Amino acid sequence: MNYPLISTDDHAWERRDTWTSRVPARFRDECPQVRTEDEVDYWVYAGTRIRALGTGCAAMRPERDAVKRWEEVPEAAYDPAARLATMDADGVGVEVLFPQAAGFGGGPFVSTVGDAKLRLACIQAYNDWLAEEWSDFSPRYVAQALAPIWDVDLAVTEIRRAHGLGHKALVWTSAPESWGFPHFNESYWDPLWATLQELAMPVALHIGGRSSLPDPWEGFSNMRKLSAISTTAITSNVQVMANVIFSGVLERFPDLKFISVESGLGWVPYLLETADHQYERQRLWNEGMSLRPSEYFHRNCYVNFWYEATGLALRDQIGVDNIMWEADFPHPTSTYPDSKKLVERCLEGIPDDECEKMLHGNALRLYGLDGAAIEAAL
Amino acid sequence: MNYPLISTDDHAWERRDTWTSRVPARFRDECPQVRTEDEVDYWVYAGTRIRALGTGCAAMRPERDAVKRWEEVPEAAYDPAARLATMDADGVGVEVLFPQAAGFGGGPFVSTVGDAKLRLACIQAYNDWLAEEWSDFSPRYVAQALAPIWDVDLAVTEIRRAHGLGHKALVWTSAPESWGFPHFNESYWDPLWATLQELAMPVALHIGGRSSLPDPWEGFSNMRKLSAISTTAITSNVQVMANVIFSGVLERFPDLKFISVESGLGWVPYLLETADHQYERQRLWNEGMSLRPSEYFHRNCYVNFWYEATGLALRDQIGVDNIMWEADFPHPTSTYPDSKKLVERCLEGIPDDECEKMLHGNALRLYGLDGAAIEAAL
Repeated sequence: MNYPLISTDDHAWERRDTWTSRVPARFRDECPQVRTEDEVDYWVYAGTRIRALGTGCAAMRPERDAVKRWEEVPEAAYDPAARLATMDADGVGVEVLFPQAAGFGGGPFVSTVGDAKLRLACIQAYNDWLAEEWSDFSPRYVAQALAPIWDVDLAVTEIRRAHGLGHKALVWTSAPESWGFPHFNESYWDPLWATLQELAMPVALHIGGRSSLPDPWEGFSNMRKLSAISTTAITSNVQVMANVIFSGVLERFPDLKFISVESGLGWVPYLLETADHQYERQRLWNEGMSLRPSEYFHRNCYVNFWYEATGLALRDQIGVDNIMWEADFPHPTSTYPDSKKLVERCLEGIPDDECEKMLHGNALRLYGLDGAAIEAAL
Repeated sequence: MNYPLISTDDHAWERRDTWTSRVPARFRDECPQVRTEDEVDYWVYAGTRIRALGTGCAAMRPERDAVKRWEEVPEAAYDPAARLATMDADGVGVEVLFPQAAGFGGGPFVSTVGDAKLRLACIQAYNDWLAEEWSDFSPRYVAQALAPIWDVDLAVTEIRRAHGLGHKALVWTSAPESWGFPHFNESYWDPLWATLQELAMPVALHIGGRSSLPDPWEGFSNMRKLSAISTTAITSNVQVMANVIFSGVLERFPDLKFISVESGLGWVPYLLETADHQYERQRLWNEGMSLRPSEYFHRNCYVNFWYEATGLALRDQIGVDNIMWEADFPHPTSTYPDSKKLVERCLEGIPDDECEKMLHGNALRLYGLDGAAIEAAL
């Protein structure tokens, strides 16, 4: 390979002081911070535990297990310089960054917990921190913004501000309605879509971006429960993308791009056959859908893979131009430290020009990255 | 083809008097019955509308549209003799029957609406009616029982009774917990699984077999909404089967069979790759899973198709022995009246012996059907 691998789903751990050092003084007690309760460290926000440290850095642990205390978290989780060393060791050129404590799908700051000014201050602090400490530090990091989901005008303003800071995409929820805000499909959100289309910023819909999923039985043991939850969450984006396709958003915003993140790709032909079948049987051309579901997908949607061989065998139906790669560093499912080996296993027998698109070129174009700057930084 | 097509998902419409003519007199006002409100007919149960007639017989309507009045419902929906004529016209040999008014996934009689004696009387009336009017009428009909989901002992008793009436499978919910009963995965249900395993009765998990799914935006127009709901429901069984695989039920009952009904099959390799990846990354052999997720699936699970060409291209990963066909007559998504044509399109280029398994042999064995009796009845 004579091009750097671009991973389109990784997690930058916020520092202990990402928020406390950045929000106005009056929010310092309520903003997210690590607190110790019964000798275990948790992220706490507005008096509520929002996340244990848990298995969020398991890829760097030999037993891929959970951590209880901040001191056990490897530096490469939260330090951009240390992270570059793990990327080099794993053969990864670029990381597209999602939050850790702030949630993977744009969630925690949108609940009714905490007043709206606090929430906005936390989102702005996150966006500032990620740009200043990560994407300004190296072109090998791609920043993606958070935005308020309780007010479309605030969201538009914050997205324009984040774009100015260098953010390349938006981390958004697949279901604002699950928190009591207007439905994803409502024209209420059109100013948001219009802004993103204008700025050529894609929308990342990471799995877990709604308030709840069917929960496996509490009797599950620890790693079995994690596996059941992970499998349910990963596969739930099939329904998320079904909604995007039928929503009408892609009809109204033909240049807007959506990325289904950490959901793999083997489901795409299945979903498209299912949705196209419905389209034909119910004659949806009569109801404002000028394209078939599969045509919207191929024009507007992206998916990414990290372990699927069968999924890649279906790449012609999915669209070689619609597929990207991800490492999900440093989460337990991550390909780290074997990314190169797993990529080779998945891509065995696939022509070089197609590999280049999926591992590099599609992401470069979608996020509008500077290939020369990345090369220079390697 | 020198064998009859076995469709593993169709719906026998209950007659207007299926319940009123069969339940004890004291339940006659509350049991399900068709009532007219504002010139539209609804199924009403214990004072609650449980279902409009809607698009439930759309496959027989030239415009595949909804009906408002019982008089518009074609006889073949509820009359077994008339139904045979539609099957002959469509080239279908055998139908495996699910309810219509009583719900597709074993739902309505399990809510807290109506007292438990009423609910049990309604379930028994349904099971009696389906055996007496349909499966006793012709070996071309396969009856599947309903059972109480609020009490495992009652369920076991009713399943044994239904088995004696000739029922070949159980229509069950994928999530009793969604109605407040013990979780699907709880050992509370083990007497049910043990009975079904003993009687060699498979468990049909039809889509829609939980109390709620993410609902598309209410602004959707009519057929677009139906398509969005159908696509969401169809694809939601991916998560249902993920839960079955991780539940432990297949570990405890190695001969019990589950059928994922009306969910297609293109998702299976995707789910199995995803679940196997989790299994390996989380080392689940340490937590009571003696087989890999894909091995449980191949040993215990079945899926069916009606429009998928891509899905069938993946049949080796799914398992040719795990695939069956369905017509979903008389629902709007049904292959009727083009079943033969659609089957030929889906199966183009697939060897004859594999077609025979998927269209006939697998179902014959799974439900324990009498092939000679079916032949004689054609």
